[in-house]
Amino acid sequence: MNPLFKEIRRNPMLWLLVFVPVAFAAEKLKPEAHTLLFVLSVIAIVPLATLLSHATESVAAKTGDAAGGLLNATLGNLTELVIALAALRAGDYMLVKASIAGAIVTNTLFMLGASFLLGGLKHHVQEYNRVSARTQAGLLFLATIALLVPSAIAGADSAQRPAFIQQLSVGLSVLLIVAYALGMLFSLKTHRELFASAAHNEEGEAPWPMGLALATLAGVTVLVALVSEIFVESVQQAAQDFGMTPAFVGFIVVALVGGAAEMASAFSGARKNRLDLSVGIALGSASQIALFVAPVLVLLSYVVGPTPMDLQLWPGAVVMMFVATLCAAFITVGGRSAWFVGVLLLMVYLVFAMTLYLLPPQAP
Amino acid sequence: MNPLFKEIRRNPMLWLLVFVPVAFAAEKLKPEAHTLLFVLSVIAIVPLATLLSHATESVAAKTGDAAGGLLNATLGNLTELVIALAALRAGDYMLVKASIAGAIVTNTLFMLGASFLLGGLKHHVQEYNRVSARTQAGLLFLATIALLVPSAIAGADSAQRPAFIQQLSVGLSVLLIVAYALGMLFSLKTHRELFASAAHNEEGEAPWPMGLALATLAGVTVLVALVSEIFVESVQQAAQDFGMTPAFVGFIVVALVGGAAEMASAFSGARKNRLDLSVGIALGSASQIALFVAPVLVLLSYVVGPTPMDLQLWPGAVVMMFVATLCAAFITVGGRSAWFVGVLLLMVYLVFAMTLYLLPPQAP
Amino acid sequence: MNPLFKEIRRNPMLWLLVFVPVAFAAEKLKPEAHTLLFVLSVIAIVPLATLLSHATESVAAKTGDAAGGLLNATLGNLTELVIALAALRAGDYMLVKASIAGAIVTNTLFMLGASFLLGGLKHHVQEYNRVSARTQAGLLFLATIALLVPSAIAGADSAQRPAFIQQLSVGLSVLLIVAYALGMLFSLKTHRELFASAAHNEEGEAPWPMGLALATLAGVTVLVALVSEIFVESVQQAAQDFGMTPAFVGFIVVALVGGAAEMASAFSGARKNRLDLSVGIALGSASQIALFVAPVLVLLSYVVGPTPMDLQLWPGAVVMMFVATLCAAFITVGGRSAWFVGVLLLMVYLVFAMTLYLLPPQAP
Repeated sequence: MNPLFKEIRRNPMLWLLVFVPVAFAAEKLKPEAHTLLFVLSVIAIVPLATLLSHATESVAAKTGDAAGGLLNATLGNLTELVIALAALRAGDYMLVKASIAGAIVTNTLFMLGASFLLGGLKHHVQEYNRVSARTQAGLLFLATIALLVPSAIAGADSAQRPAFIQQLSVGLSVLLIVAYALGMLFSLKTHRELFASAAHNEEGEAPWPMGLALATLAGVTVLVALVSEIFVESVQQAAQDFGMTPAFVGFIVVALVGGAAEMASAFSGARKNRLDLSVGIALGSASQIALFVAPVLVLLSYVVGPTPMDLQLWPGAVVMMFVATLCAAFITVGGRSAWFVGVLLLMVYLVFAMTLYLLPPQAP
Repeated sequence: MNPLFKEIRRNPMLWLLVFVPVAFAAEKLKPEAHTLLFVLSVIAIVPLATLLSHATESVAAKTGDAAGGLLNATLGNLTELVIALAALRAGDYMLVKASIAGAIVTNTLFMLGASFLLGGLKHHVQEYNRVSARTQAGLLFLATIALLVPSAIAGADSAQRPAFIQQLSVGLSVLLIVAYALGMLFSLKTHRELFASAAHNEEGEAPWPMGLALATLAGVTVLVALVSEIFVESVQQAAQDFGMTPAFVGFIVVALVGGAAEMASAFSGARKNRLDLSVGIALGSASQIALFVAPVLVLLSYVVGPTPMDLQLWPGAVVMMFVATLCAAFITVGGRSAWFVGVLLLMVYLVFAMTLYLLPPQAP
Repeated sequence: MNPLFKEIRRNPMLWLLVFVPVAFAAEKLKPEAHTLLFVLSVIAIVPLATLLSHATESVAAKTGDAAGGLLNATLGNLTELVIALAALRAGDYMLVKASIAGAIVTNTLFMLGASFLLGGLKHHVQEYNRVSARTQAGLLFLATIALLVPSAIAGADSAQRPAFIQQLSVGLSVLLIVAYALGMLFSLKTHRELFASAAHNEEGEAPWPMGLALATLAGVTVLVALVSEIFVESVQQAAQDFGMTPAFVGFIVVALVGGAAEMASAFSGARKNRLDLSVGIALGSASQIALFVAPVLVLLSYVVGPTPMDLQLWPGAVVMMFVATLCAAFITVGGRSAWFVGVLLLMVYLVFAMTLYLLPPQAP
């Protein structure tokens, strides 16, 4: 257990782990204190996501290149998946969909923008591999488009029939998962050289022994699942107390909390002038949400949800996802960055956040 | 007549020519067997399109560079034009519009995607002239945008007035044809060097003598027109029997049938690692539909149609055309391709096809 | 006063200054002759805009690099700002918004397209700095997106609440102005080298002495304000007489009149094969409208307007602005131009103009 404690001593973010038992205790003692439970569960998820990310990388490092890459790619958004699953079981499909859309938008605008800004404040102009960035931005663009087609087509027509949307969502989910599997074959096997190294270990972070890594992976996933349940149960009420719309919570809060670990890696890469890493994490993670997390949730809704979930998104979310991936594709076309590019990406993100915050709540 | 028979012996696709008389016979004998007539006419059009394409290229090769290029560019989509004319005369404007939109989408997503996939399965990474591809993708993007403006503007406004749309469609058609003429001047005269060689003859396919080529051109055009009439008459009923929506038939079936000959050339170029050729055929053909076929059909509707046709498209078609050309523009920006890029383009196409297949039929 | 008269003698466009007193006289004598007043005020604004632009550049040249750049960037769209202010005071928010949207569309499609066409007719293929052009197109794209978010989100939802839109517009305006200030810091201070020289003096145009320049700046601004008032008062009635819709007047006429001086500079740069200059003027001016003029007008509407103005645009304007900046971004990605690229940009502009001209007037 030594490396785990060493890691905890080294990384101040992990000190927040103390909030995990606090959150469980608070739920037992004060099940009605929604705002408190919401805040505690948010704070507790951040260090768990960091641990999960570290454990996944350790297992990946041990199992070797192909299998490790596969694992890393599949479990990279495990936190987002577990939170969304808790919302799925609770039948809160609005929250599930908002968190899918929000994760894509947050990764492409906030994670990328803040990386550019933080890197640009330290380095005058940063260059990165534009062939690799273009490939990844292209994949993300096509993946997002595929995900958005049902909403765009159905939204454009006046007569929306639920049965049609449901059939389409299942067919689309199968297609997306097939594309995801082929994409793994592409990025891990046939065209590995096009992608920036998937392992984003910090220097000085030796991988953990296999047993510890697997145990951490299993244990922390269970903890995330339990904390996510507290989060999902309290979020609606707490959002109202804070004056936040449900759309804002799903889009912004869940996405920032779920992606905290990856953001730490991306920002650290940018500061070290390794923007390839930051761009790879941001765009790769967003692609994975579109190609893997979203369709898996649709298919799982037939097993765990009270009713099947479709992929039709709220029109504003469609606009935001489309715009976010378009921005990412435009910005990465040149392979150069400076601080103001980051500012502009963050500004678009802030505009989205402000819109969602001010948006009057809608009938579901 | 020798070269024609030699060609037929050499090219197995032309053996399907036997279905041309079969289709005519079936129409005389069983005019009510819509499904049979539909299938027969589809099979009969494919070899006719191939012959038409070969005859056009032969005439073009004989008449020399500029005039030949002009001919090739104008008659390259003759099959699509003749099918659409048959639908126009029958007053089936939904089919006409769906076949215009479908040809653009099929060329940019299916033809380009399958070329990338087929080429990528044989060659690890394929490079092509990105300056030429960008120019062509840019032209296609602007041409599609111009074509979509009336639908986008009118669709965005609640009050759509038919007279306004009709006036706008005619004005736009004139503008598009002027732009097309200037584009010919540009690509055949002033900036010929920017475009990949327009002649896409297979090696070993000697051009036919002029007389034979002209006779074939005339005769086959008449045959395509006659078969198209059987096709248009039977398609509605047959689509219902097959459970296909009219939108699916126009968008997918007509586009795949009408473009069969060009697809054969594009795929063969990709296998031979001549992706410039494939990209040129796919993007050039799509541009031609937008700048030439579509406006000509609008203007011809005043002569041959029961009522004038406008250019207002169904909103879902607008989304698909816009997305397809955007994808093409993004994907071709780097000038490199690998098999997975083709998979993703095909996936977006499959998503579109699935959406159209499942879409509940609408009131016209 | 010598340099001013020398300039007037040299530049035939300034001879139109004679229409300034004519317009004032006409307003006193025939206040009901709306069509005449409209025509006179349009003709009078063109030379005033030219003088304003020259005076701004002279002051900028004297005050040195950073402050001069700041001045140039801030006052570059002074004419547009003053015309919009006159419309704001008159409470004609439709005209204000149309002129904002129209200035962005006209700069990116007409000014850029005509520069490419005029330059391309003289030079076979023109190259320009694609890194600088991409940066500027990227900034313009993000700025336009931010400006469009409220309209896109609100337009996508059925329930639009005025209070929400108003709050969002104010918040957005503050954000845009902050981004504009940071952008100045970026382009004038930290990353000056990425931008083409902001001063676009003609050779042989010596800067004026400071006193003359400042006096001209002040005097001409007052004259523009006075003429703009005649323009705004007469435009509604005159548009009706000419059969032009209010949208057409705001979008096309105001934008062309207000941007006349910058167009002269951009076109002259293109003819001299200095396309960097033309692209910089066109994209920079459009960014400035989005990031500075639009939010300033929203905030000023609380002071000078009868009621606060929001940033919600008519859906057709959203489509046009989005398409225009997308076209600009695509076209400038390669850093090369030829005459037909200009033709296509102009064609899209013509399609927009035709649509607005034919569009049946709407209830406000």
